[in-house]
Amino acid sequence: MENPEVLATLSTQECQVLLGANSVGRLAVVADGQPAIYPVNYIIDGTDIVLRTNWSGLTHACPMLVALEVDGIDIAQGCGWRVLVQGMAHDVTDALDVRSETLQSVAVAPWAPGLEPRLLRLVPRRITGQHFGERALGYARQ
Amino acid sequence: MENPEVLATLSTQECQVLLGANSVGRLAVVADGQPAIYPVNYIIDGTDIVLRTNWSGLTHACPMLVALEVDGIDIAQGCGWRVLVQGMAHDVTDALDVRSETLQSVAVAPWAPGLEPRLLRLVPRRITGQHFGERALGYARQ
Repeated sequence: MENPEVLATLSTQECQVLLGANSVGRLAVVADGQPAIYPVNYIIDGTDIVLRTNWSGLTHACPMLVALEVDGIDIAQGCGWRVLVQGMAHDVTDALDVRSETLQSVAVAPWAPGLEPRLLRLVPRRITGQHFGERALGYARQ
Repeated sequence: MENPEVLATLSTQECQVLLGANSVGRLAVVADGQPAIYPVNYIIDGTDIVLRTNWSGLTHACPMLVALEVDGIDIAQGCGWRVLVQGMAHDVTDALDVRSETLQSVAVAPWAPGLEPRLLRLVPRRITGQHFGERALGYARQ
C-alpha cells in the first residue's frame, strides 16, 4: 500500500514526455545473475530507444533483457520522479534490415566514444513511472 | 581497448570517497531475468551500504544480488564519473543479530516512506569506477 501524497504513479503519456525531454539514463543489464548499471546517452526514435555505447560487457549478450531508468532528483527538496523502461535490447550496429539501417543514421553519440561504439535498439515492453517525496506532485509537473 | 583520455579508471579509494560524499544512487535488481532500477537513498556504515526503501518488489527476493550505481554527470560538458557497487543485499529490517541491530539504528530515511519501509544491508563484493568524457580527469577530481 502506497501513500498517494509521497509516491504517485505517472501516466504512460507523462512517462513518454519525460523520456523525450531527457537524454541521459542508467541501463541495467544482467550477467551470470549479477546486475550491473551503466550511465548512457539515449534518444527516442518512434517507439524505440536508441543507445550508442562503448561500455565493455554491455553488448556481448544481446539480445538481452534490460531496464533503462531516467529520473530527475532534487536532493535539497527530497523529491523527484523516475521512469523505468523494461524491454529487450538488440545490437543493431551491423544489422542490415531496414529498421536497423534507419537507426544507424540516428545522431546519438556516447561521451566515452572509444574505438568501437555499438548501437543498441531498446524495444520497450513496459514503461512505468512515479514521482516521490512530499512535494512530488508539484515537482514532476513543473 | 579504451581511450585513456575519455574513459579512465578510478581507484578503489577514489570510489569510496565518491560513495561517501553522495547519498543518492540507483539500485538494480533482477526478477525473473528482467532487471529493474530503483532510485534510493543510502549511507555508508563501515564496509556496508545501508538503504531504507519502500519500493514494492525490492525486498521480496532478499538476499539477492544487486548493483548500486552512484554517478555525477555534467550534461552540458558531456562528462562525469560513476561508481558501481556489486554485491548481496540482505533485508535486515527485523533481523536480530548484533550487526543488524546496529544498522537498524542508522539514520537513513527514504523519500517515499509509505507504511512499511524495509532496511537493506548491501555487502559489497566488487567496487569499480570510471570517469568519462573529454574533460573526465579534471571533472572527477574537482
